[in-house]
Amino acid sequence: MAAASTDQVDFVNGGTRLFGIVGDPIAQVRSPEMVTWELRRRGLDAVLVPIHVFEAEFDAVLPALMRVANLDGLVFTIPFKRRACALAASLGAQARAVGAINALARGADGRWHGEIFDGLGCVEGLQRAGVAVRGARVMLVGLGGAGTAIAAAFAAERPASMRLFDLDAAHCGRVAAMVQAASPVTEVEVGPPVVDGVDLLVNATPVGMLDDPRLPIEAASLPSSLVVFDAIVKPEVTPLLAFAASQGCRAIGGREMMRGQIARIVDFLAATRRG
Amino acid sequence: MAAASTDQVDFVNGGTRLFGIVGDPIAQVRSPEMVTWELRRRGLDAVLVPIHVFEAEFDAVLPALMRVANLDGLVFTIPFKRRACALAASLGAQARAVGAINALARGADGRWHGEIFDGLGCVEGLQRAGVAVRGARVMLVGLGGAGTAIAAAFAAERPASMRLFDLDAAHCGRVAAMVQAASPVTEVEVGPPVVDGVDLLVNATPVGMLDDPRLPIEAASLPSSLVVFDAIVKPEVTPLLAFAASQGCRAIGGREMMRGQIARIVDFLAATRRG
Repeated sequence: MAAASTDQVDFVNGGTRLFGIVGDPIAQVRSPEMVTWELRRRGLDAVLVPIHVFEAEFDAVLPALMRVANLDGLVFTIPFKRRACALAASLGAQARAVGAINALARGADGRWHGEIFDGLGCVEGLQRAGVAVRGARVMLVGLGGAGTAIAAAFAAERPASMRLFDLDAAHCGRVAAMVQAASPVTEVEVGPPVVDGVDLLVNATPVGMLDDPRLPIEAASLPSSLVVFDAIVKPEVTPLLAFAASQGCRAIGGREMMRGQIARIVDFLAATRRG
Repeated sequence: MAAASTDQVDFVNGGTRLFGIVGDPIAQVRSPEMVTWELRRRGLDAVLVPIHVFEAEFDAVLPALMRVANLDGLVFTIPFKRRACALAASLGAQARAVGAINALARGADGRWHGEIFDGLGCVEGLQRAGVAVRGARVMLVGLGGAGTAIAAAFAAERPASMRLFDLDAAHCGRVAAMVQAASPVTEVEVGPPVVDGVDLLVNATPVGMLDDPRLPIEAASLPSSLVVFDAIVKPEVTPLLAFAASQGCRAIGGREMMRGQIARIVDFLAATRRG
């Protein structure tokens, strides 16, 4: 009798706990490789798999998926971050401020808790790079999903000042009010994307993504004391980051935010029940 | 900027196709390691994960799960092999004969097709060991789920004769009629678990499993020309197989059936659509 012991893989078995990332489309996501790596690095027998749910099927599929007994958590990406809030029995402070979640985990009591880590990942990535948001003078450009989450996470750090810019002036005003409410000590203003009197410039717009050669700010030069963070992941060196480096500035890319976010998401997911 | 390229695993990504094994309980199953190994050996970017669905949740969860767009197929184990038939738009010949499925795959037309490979895996495992069922005189002991599937798969091979034994006499009679209808050339009889005039003895009862020291047959000795197959996977050498070997018989264990079944299931699953 030949043993079957070599005809098998070592990364999944009957006892493996499941996590998923839900999106539409799904093929472009990086969480399966990165979150699974981090779960395993922590010694957990777990895997995060891609789960492609068509937008029109979301309400029919998700509540049933959440009844799978060895599924301990879900990550949400485009276009589900807002809708996914309705699946959570409770929301974290960031999720309440932003109105969206990107992670949902089953607690010890069996109830599902939601939170968003886009902004917290940015703070974590900056911290890992030795850059503190607390007490800094910040210019944040772009208040879409990621930018709004960054604003909420930055507010929790109590920066000295925060200038916000977005093409949607009404939304910009709402985010400014949210930041001010969360951090009364911060000087909050809405204004153009310039860098005078700023320590930390954050780009959360898609300007500079892929082959876009534009800059998201209006500036002919940058003070070398400025730290420039760009949330874009591809390319790794955006036109803004290249410009910042040419001006002697510290330049930090979207991968640091992604790594910070992965770490925070795994903290959140790994705290779920083992049933 | 540190590259994130090392902080990732290489066995799952956003484009990975999903398969699952559904059961209650689930931790004991071996398909995740074995089917995933075979899928990857064939060059497919795919993984089979354990999916624990409580018995009472089956009807609520499965139809929704089947709407996940990158899920191409499911394997079913205890206690769902019979109920899962209702999920299939069409059933294979073995599934119709047995009234159960253990695999469900999405076809190119988006419809789900079900089949059972328990018996086909046994035939495949015997073939790999150089043992033909066609023309053989068979004694099959035990007609539970696996035994009934083995009876159906053996019938398709047209053995010379087939003697069946099960403690449930009424079920035994129904299986005998099914075998006779599928293979009119086979001499079918219901009778005690003895080995006179038999070329191939198959045990599909749980007798001899784990620490059970009993034999599933009534025999003080065995002819050395007899081939003995035991469907039990643990232990690898059952009391029956040890006895067979001591009598100079060819002894083949459940792992060969499992390997044959994995191969046939992956043939079936890998033919599904890539959406």
